Amino acid sequence: MQAVDFNSDMGESFGPWTIGDGVDNELMGFISSANIATGFHAGDPGTMRRTIEQAKRLGVAIGAHPGFRDLVGFGRRHINAPAQELVDDMLYQLGALREMARVQGVKLQHIKPHGALYMHLARDEEAARLLVQNLRKLEPELLLYCMPNSVIWHVAQELGQPVIREFYADRDYDLSGSIVFTRQVRALDPAAVAAKVLRACQTGLVRTVEGEDLAIEFDSICLHSDTPGALDLVEATRTALDQAGIEVRAPR
Amino acid sequence: MQAVDFNSDMGESFGPWTIGDGVDNELMGFISSANIATGFHAGDPGTMRRTIEQAKRLGVAIGAHPGFRDLVGFGRRHINAPAQELVDDMLYQLGALREMARVQGVKLQHIKPHGALYMHLARDEEAARLLVQNLRKLEPELLLYCMPNSVIWHVAQELGQPVIREFYADRDYDLSGSIVFTRQVRALDPAAVAAKVLRACQTGLVRTVEGEDLAIEFDSICLHSDTPGALDLVEATRTALDQAGIEVRAPR
Amino acid sequence: MQAVDFNSDMGESFGPWTIGDGVDNELMGFISSANIATGFHAGDPGTMRRTIEQAKRLGVAIGAHPGFRDLVGFGRRHINAPAQELVDDMLYQLGALREMARVQGVKLQHIKPHGALYMHLARDEEAARLLVQNLRKLEPELLLYCMPNSVIWHVAQELGQPVIREFYADRDYDLSGSIVFTRQVRALDPAAVAAKVLRACQTGLVRTVEGEDLAIEFDSICLHSDTPGALDLVEATRTALDQAGIEVRAPR
Amino acid sequence: MQAVDFNSDMGESFGPWTIGDGVDNELMGFISSANIATGFHAGDPGTMRRTIEQAKRLGVAIGAHPGFRDLVGFGRRHINAPAQELVDDMLYQLGALREMARVQGVKLQHIKPHGALYMHLARDEEAARLLVQNLRKLEPELLLYCMPNSVIWHVAQELGQPVIREFYADRDYDLSGSIVFTRQVRALDPAAVAAKVLRACQTGLVRTVEGEDLAIEFDSICLHSDTPGALDLVEATRTALDQAGIEVRAPR
Repeated sequence: MQAVDFNSDMGESFGPWTIGDGVDNELMGFISSANIATGFHAGDPGTMRRTIEQAKRLGVAIGAHPGFRDLVGFGRRHINAPAQELVDDMLYQLGALREMARVQGVKLQHIKPHGALYMHLARDEEAARLLVQNLRKLEPELLLYCMPNSVIWHVAQELGQPVIREFYADRDYDLSGSIVFTRQVRALDPAAVAAKVLRACQTGLVRTVEGEDLAIEFDSICLHSDTPGALDLVEATRTALDQAGIEVRAPR
Repeated sequence: MQAVDFNSDMGESFGPWTIGDGVDNELMGFISSANIATGFHAGDPGTMRRTIEQAKRLGVAIGAHPGFRDLVGFGRRHINAPAQELVDDMLYQLGALREMARVQGVKLQHIKPHGALYMHLARDEEAARLLVQNLRKLEPELLLYCMPNSVIWHVAQELGQPVIREFYADRDYDLSGSIVFTRQVRALDPAAVAAKVLRACQTGLVRTVEGEDLAIEFDSICLHSDTPGALDLVEATRTALDQAGIEVRAPR
Repeated sequence: MQAVDFNSDMGESFGPWTIGDGVDNELMGFISSANIATGFHAGDPGTMRRTIEQAKRLGVAIGAHPGFRDLVGFGRRHINAPAQELVDDMLYQLGALREMARVQGVKLQHIKPHGALYMHLARDEEAARLLVQNLRKLEPELLLYCMPNSVIWHVAQELGQPVIREFYADRDYDLSGSIVFTRQVRALDPAAVAAKVLRACQTGLVRTVEGEDLAIEFDSICLHSDTPGALDLVEATRTALDQAGIEVRAPR
Repeated sequence: MQAVDFNSDMGESFGPWTIGDGVDNELMGFISSANIATGFHAGDPGTMRRTIEQAKRLGVAIGAHPGFRDLVGFGRRHINAPAQELVDDMLYQLGALREMARVQGVKLQHIKPHGALYMHLARDEEAARLLVQNLRKLEPELLLYCMPNSVIWHVAQELGQPVIREFYADRDYDLSGSIVFTRQVRALDPAAVAAKVLRACQTGLVRTVEGEDLAIEFDSICLHSDTPGALDLVEATRTALDQAGIEVRAPR
């Protein structure tokens, strides 16, 4: 692998409350694509504007990161809603970010649903299909960030929407290729995360929780900005990639 | 006057709650331009989609109707916020509607701020100027609905943003040209409203609360959909215009 | 049966939006217990105050009707949240209503969770148990409205919280004793609903969707105020009960 | 002065977002009265529960800290609303906290409106009077924290509601006795703040921005938890009071 994208969630402050180091955060300096929260699970119009400004200044590509309409739950709680309702909510948020980017002369590169909505679209074909059908009409070149082999990945392949497959630097995999969700109490070790990412980029392999290797394909490394110690993890990973001569750059 | 625009606020339902007759409402059949609520004071993404569909079906032009972030107050309560914050909120809402219209192949014709935000922009130069400066960058042809001689009208004239001047069919004027805000308890008489509008279109005059005539210029008739008996008022007005041979059509 | 309680959901307006006829609605005149929305799925502090006033004037007992934190979904969408979070939300809402009732000299008679939260507590033992444990501490005499034989009913029996078992006038039963949820398009017939309720009161039987009779026990008749034609259904039912000499009165 | 109350705002997190060090914050260890956010400008039911638990564990008295319904603005933006609406909102929030405290066996000591609402009640007689009238009915012994000589202070005196007069450790005074609101960029010096508070306690004097002394009377020291460096300021102030033999204790 000569080059890889590196994405993280940005702009997840709300009003007076910041997440991590807020919009000024240093994390933006290490990534190539920013998923910007669009107001339903986090983010507000002012935070969105400032996050776009920062991404533009640093040459980081941006995408919409729409979530369930659930501020208090940060979009992490599944809400049982019809597909049409969820897609309406996502288009609303996508357009809101697009307008705020457009006034700064910035084009959206991608869309990546957030949290429980991301997981919902990885499993629910009706919602996934309706979203992709709408993207086909709206912007056939907008990149869709998703989990390889998820339902939405299959639908996007079928309908022709371009996808970016993610590798989760701060999550464990099992042999089925699924991510093992644990309520992580312990902090991750930056050196270990960097080594894991580098190995995945160089060999296409990741060590699973069962202790065996799994072959994986991906276009972008994802590291969540709200993982404890995220800045150290991102910095260590970026440094390892730079030293190995693997260019970190946005897909477009 | 050979032709005139006729605008009203549409899509002001929220979740399970409807205003007036809701999105199915018959009012849309009588107007030429619909101001669609964009979620902060009223409206939700599903309501916005359905309202755009209805407008498209009936050939009614649409515009964004952004308000203060205040659902419980329906955007009627002034919120003391910095200009930048208000403009961020308006661009967010404008983009949300634009995206939902775009997926249906519909272009936005205009923007008209709602309620207390409309009044704020009629008086506050900093916010008015910042909004218009952003519109100049975003879409120099987007029509801005406003009150003739208000601060935002002057700013738009100065910066070159095209405006549509409104005549308020369901409000009283005084000799200064200001609207007299009364907590209207009594219902308005459809015939009287229709006659007032027709006279304004034909002679450019309106009878003030002082009992004298005032000369007025306008491009669009505004009748609020939440005025009691709005449907009868709109229907009577439209009929009067039709019978007088004055075409009701959107500015674009 | 000499007497029976008759409950309905009240105060489900929000800000400018009314449900049915709003707080002035005539429905209150026919029931003995009002479940008052407490702000998370519907209702706002002003609506709550006015609804309490009306109930007090008409001698109707009141209870808290807390729902999921989901205005746009009216509390009808299941949200996947931890038990503690849901119970915190319910106590918050219960206290809010209690205070607003107390300032008017009115005591709360009961609590009845709303919509999807009602169904969640009918099935989820952890949340049901935690709620009832909290009610034991807070107010051991507060009546808990629930579905006979549901999980929360069993837990309340076990822990000693007094319950009121409901009979759903506007829902169909199957032979298992479950309610058959259908997306009711057709309006219900007031005479049929009244007859069904009267028969249930007089014989303890209800005709199921399978066409056979089911024996049921209940303390309160529930008729949802947002069922189409609710006012006619409630009035017909009340009239039938009055004519049969069955007193409609609150449990306390 | 032998003893003085020391109050600060607590529980101002919301969902995933924390303010300062969040509910675990060390600040609670230095104060005697906690003003707990009640959900409209900050705080959520889970945060409220945890904040009450912490206050109980540390023997800190608690009160309700209701704000404008404005999460994104943190209750710092004035909203132009009728007195009745504001009082309804405050009673709703007061009851919510009272219930959550009651289930833990904790009694509310006081109420202190937050931010722009605090300032509104310091000036607006209609709202202040309506609030105090409601408190007279609800709980004639509930302490009302306010600014000496403000409108609400006068109304409370007139109607008999007990008040606690505040001295603002992190604000400057002018000779009129008013607080000088500055957008504080510079951090305050802990030693200077501690010295200022100690002098006020011992001599009843505060140096004004004009450079002359002003005589002040107060029952409680207020230090805002969101003032930059709040923890250091609070700790230094508490240490100075302890060393001077002035007991820090809640009014009740």
